[in-house]
Amino acid sequence: MPQPIEFFFDFSSPYGYLASRRIDEIAARHGREVVWKPILLGAVFKLTGGQPLVQIPMKSDYVQRDFARFARLLGVDFKMPDNFPFSSIHAVRSFWWMEGRDPKGAHALAQHLYNKAFSGNDIASAQAVASAAAEIGIDSAALLAGIESPEVKDRTRTESDAAIARGIFGSPYIIIDGEPFWGADRLDQVEKWLATGGW
Amino acid sequence: MPQPIEFFFDFSSPYGYLASRRIDEIAARHGREVVWKPILLGAVFKLTGGQPLVQIPMKSDYVQRDFARFARLLGVDFKMPDNFPFSSIHAVRSFWWMEGRDPKGAHALAQHLYNKAFSGNDIASAQAVASAAAEIGIDSAALLAGIESPEVKDRTRTESDAAIARGIFGSPYIIIDGEPFWGADRLDQVEKWLATGGW
Repeated sequence: MPQPIEFFFDFSSPYGYLASRRIDEIAARHGREVVWKPILLGAVFKLTGGQPLVQIPMKSDYVQRDFARFARLLGVDFKMPDNFPFSSIHAVRSFWWMEGRDPKGAHALAQHLYNKAFSGNDIASAQAVASAAAEIGIDSAALLAGIESPEVKDRTRTESDAAIARGIFGSPYIIIDGEPFWGADRLDQVEKWLATGGW
Repeated sequence: MPQPIEFFFDFSSPYGYLASRRIDEIAARHGREVVWKPILLGAVFKLTGGQPLVQIPMKSDYVQRDFARFARLLGVDFKMPDNFPFSSIHAVRSFWWMEGRDPKGAHALAQHLYNKAFSGNDIASAQAVASAAAEIGIDSAALLAGIESPEVKDRTRTESDAAIARGIFGSPYIIIDGEPFWGADRLDQVEKWLATGGW
């Protein structure tokens, strides 16, 4: 069996969202599975001096136009939430809480949270995450308790540190058999890499 | 007649180089011409807080791998010069000097300088630029005198300021009928925009 593709993303990353809408189907066309791994780019930005694209002078207008144009090209719904850029710590903790109980459920939760956020909804607070989770049948009281547990907080830190140690600095960041691809604009290359085995 | 496509680039930008190898043929397939406009990203970085990609922690290794991989995908020769990232002020001034006498010659000079740089050669010094220009039949003594003239220095500043005023913050940066595209990874979208008139 080939290794699964790793899909790293920040819930507050519009380009990560765009990739999230296509990565599973691209992988499936080549008989591959995808492991989703949310990261907290804030921790990376401390190391790289980076900052959210929409806060950078001159780039801000361009990237907001590009998000929407790229979404139209992909045929994907897209609406920036009013609270963008938002904290995704509760979304990430809820993912790792769920992952410890049911990895497929965690994948579904991540997809649902991402779709909620970029159809214009707030997923920043623990309560907003729990309400969204409830919409796909997850026990919101259990989630709210779980994301406050030391185990889940530790797991969140450990996964984030591991991603940084592996050099992941942006969202989306896709790894295929050790080969890294950064950016939603690399989806065509990801597909070609899977189809050809690399070049 | 449709307006020409504007192609903004920094001579020290590897992604700009990759785009330079394809932009003319993409435009030609759709009956369009391309006006090349070298910029000095250093001036933009002062405004955006940006820095050369290869100097950013964590991103550096990735982008160097990506440059080469992208070049192989495009089927384009690519070798980073030892003096990368280099100053391109003399290359830019030589372009505007030539453009004042012969716009087509300036285009040819820019192509030649870009190809020289990213086949591993130094084009930073005035002498290196003049030697490269001589290889395509340009009078190197006239060039060396021209790039020291106040008119050419003014033109270089004016063009750079105009680009910044229009919001150009990266390389390559391509404008089609007012629609901006940033990055070599937008070449497919550039082609699609030309083919469809936009989406």
